[in-house]
Amino acid sequence: MEPDFSPLAEFLGDDFDGYLISADGSDSNQLYLSGFDAPDPYTTLYTPEGTHLLVSTLEYGRAKKESRADTVSRLSDYDYMEKYTEYGPVVGKAKVLAEFLADHDVASLAAPDDFPLATADALRDEGVSIEGETDDVLTTIRAVKDDDEIDHIHDAQKATQASMHAAEDLIRAADVADDGTLRYEGEPLTSERVKEEIEVTLLRHGCALNETIVACGADAADPHNRGSGPLSANEAIIIDIFPRNKATKYNGDMTRTFVKGEPTEEVREWFDLTEEAFNAALDAVEPGATGEDVHDAVCDVYEAAGENTLRADQSAETGFIHSTGHGVGLDVHELPRVSQNGEELKPGHVITIEPGLYDPEIGGVRIEDMVVVTEDGYENLTDYPVELVVE
Amino acid sequence: MEPDFSPLAEFLGDDFDGYLISADGSDSNQLYLSGFDAPDPYTTLYTPEGTHLLVSTLEYGRAKKESRADTVSRLSDYDYMEKYTEYGPVVGKAKVLAEFLADHDVASLAAPDDFPLATADALRDEGVSIEGETDDVLTTIRAVKDDDEIDHIHDAQKATQASMHAAEDLIRAADVADDGTLRYEGEPLTSERVKEEIEVTLLRHGCALNETIVACGADAADPHNRGSGPLSANEAIIIDIFPRNKATKYNGDMTRTFVKGEPTEEVREWFDLTEEAFNAALDAVEPGATGEDVHDAVCDVYEAAGENTLRADQSAETGFIHSTGHGVGLDVHELPRVSQNGEELKPGHVITIEPGLYDPEIGGVRIEDMVVVTEDGYENLTDYPVELVVE
Repeated sequence: MEPDFSPLAEFLGDDFDGYLISADGSDSNQLYLSGFDAPDPYTTLYTPEGTHLLVSTLEYGRAKKESRADTVSRLSDYDYMEKYTEYGPVVGKAKVLAEFLADHDVASLAAPDDFPLATADALRDEGVSIEGETDDVLTTIRAVKDDDEIDHIHDAQKATQASMHAAEDLIRAADVADDGTLRYEGEPLTSERVKEEIEVTLLRHGCALNETIVACGADAADPHNRGSGPLSANEAIIIDIFPRNKATKYNGDMTRTFVKGEPTEEVREWFDLTEEAFNAALDAVEPGATGEDVHDAVCDVYEAAGENTLRADQSAETGFIHSTGHGVGLDVHELPRVSQNGEELKPGHVITIEPGLYDPEIGGVRIEDMVVVTEDGYENLTDYPVELVVE
Repeated sequence: MEPDFSPLAEFLGDDFDGYLISADGSDSNQLYLSGFDAPDPYTTLYTPEGTHLLVSTLEYGRAKKESRADTVSRLSDYDYMEKYTEYGPVVGKAKVLAEFLADHDVASLAAPDDFPLATADALRDEGVSIEGETDDVLTTIRAVKDDDEIDHIHDAQKATQASMHAAEDLIRAADVADDGTLRYEGEPLTSERVKEEIEVTLLRHGCALNETIVACGADAADPHNRGSGPLSANEAIIIDIFPRNKATKYNGDMTRTFVKGEPTEEVREWFDLTEEAFNAALDAVEPGATGEDVHDAVCDVYEAAGENTLRADQSAETGFIHSTGHGVGLDVHELPRVSQNGEELKPGHVITIEPGLYDPEIGGVRIEDMVVVTEDGYENLTDYPVELVVE
């Protein structure tokens, strides 16, 4: 399906002739605007009249076939190697870009806020005006998914679920050694072993391996700690899986918290409270509500129960110390924000809901599903039980 | 081992007070300068007197423990949320950065050439001068590896070799169907099946999955085509594997070309010629030679045999249509260049040597090893036979 770029044309208006991206295909804005993926940087120029690519000779044939651009030019059409040799890569490239832009009658540009600084300044030296836009124009377009994109994300989530099942099954099948650590088939069951199982399962489902979190005990109390070493019984194990489908490039994302054996009273209470916050957040998801409303629903539950939150204390290091969620698409973190300052939710937004509580003395718990905002609420793209104890 | 940043201090000289990176840990310059990895953007300020990190509260504890910074500050120390709410994320962040920089007596900055444009312009509005450096200062430091880094790269290459063996074994074990396609255990042996085998093998060796090329016949004639569908006997199959070790973040890279059955006369000639070019390139690798010298050695062999090259015709679409190689480290493509304009080689540079020939009428062949430049030549970090026919 062809994205609707009319909000981009509208944004350009009388202020800018075009929108320029210079990045490789790992940049999701580039992937989305060009409809093309290549491992080395290339240039996409969007104008309300058409989209134009500038690529290396190596990518020329494929770009003509695969991209959504109206025209494709080669760096060599603008004597790139000569300019590179005389002026170096950055200024040489800017001189090529200036000629390419002139060919498309473009003298003033908007660009993503992370457009490379040195190239922008070199373009300015060539008389081209360029501004990094901070209005999230392109990322706001990307945030609203069409049916094909939602299918891609749903498929990635199914792979995520399959790998969560594989991880849970390992923990279920483990024995508990005398020292409380888990053992599987005579070996210590480590975070690394569970991650390998998750990753192999994802691979068999066409998903690329990203970082995966399998964090136990005090490790789990740091939401960005990936976890390492032996897993233990009676402690909370957070498993957070966020893979990308290799073909479609869309992501999935989910988290569960498991205890093998008997949770402490505090972990049990935290889990129940987090499930309550999770359900309160889901209840708040509907078009017209903001990401901040959804985040507030979580903070309200936690604060009413006497837990600390970043909303109450922005330097908090224990309690609920991250956002409620984020958009998911070509990037695993994208718009809309589901946090303080979160945007208004619209049908087609795909977001995570992932409240959690953290304290090195207790451990960590987090529950995360991914949902799509619909005309009258949301549809949960995740189908996995919310249960703490694995027996 | 602590990198030697004295060339960076020297570059700053009297012109700049410090060097600033604002990126997440997927940016190798950030990873290298900060000694810290986080999934969301954070800021590293290098000055000749010390290195200073600015991170979210979420990363604060881990940054203090894991990074190589002398000081770590939090966004909340500078009232980021208030500024974000009043000015938006980019200008709000720039106001925080300006205060953070002032605290470290920094008013003028150099930055990587890809520093985000909107943040740079917002910093300028706050009275901070900032310039994207195009002298490759940091990437030139990164290009020279110490012994630990070479070990990490060597380990990644051993995993690469293990996965190449797994791929070659699959092709060896395959049968040839009546229509010439390969079959393995009763199923078509596809590019996708071989890639899965490669990727699972890499995973078992602690390497993260990147894109992998298994391209047969006409697919192999496009060096960036990843390949798809059934593999065929008597056609060249290019397998290019470039994984990253998940723990060390260093990469490996190698390519072999296989034919199951009987190669055409042209493919056989191309393979022998490419092996000759490959050996000529290796012979040219020594300190003091340039990446361009090594590239020229390859072009000389190909052109003497009547093959087209980009050196002879920069819009060539068949023949030898890419560089001879590239540096490998935290990025799979980094300095030095082994191409036209390639830099002088120095001991500790790790580079690939990967000549190849391409034509949709014939297919493609490529041979690639990875070597480290030593005081008196090079050491090959790759240990894998160069043989075309798989029987």
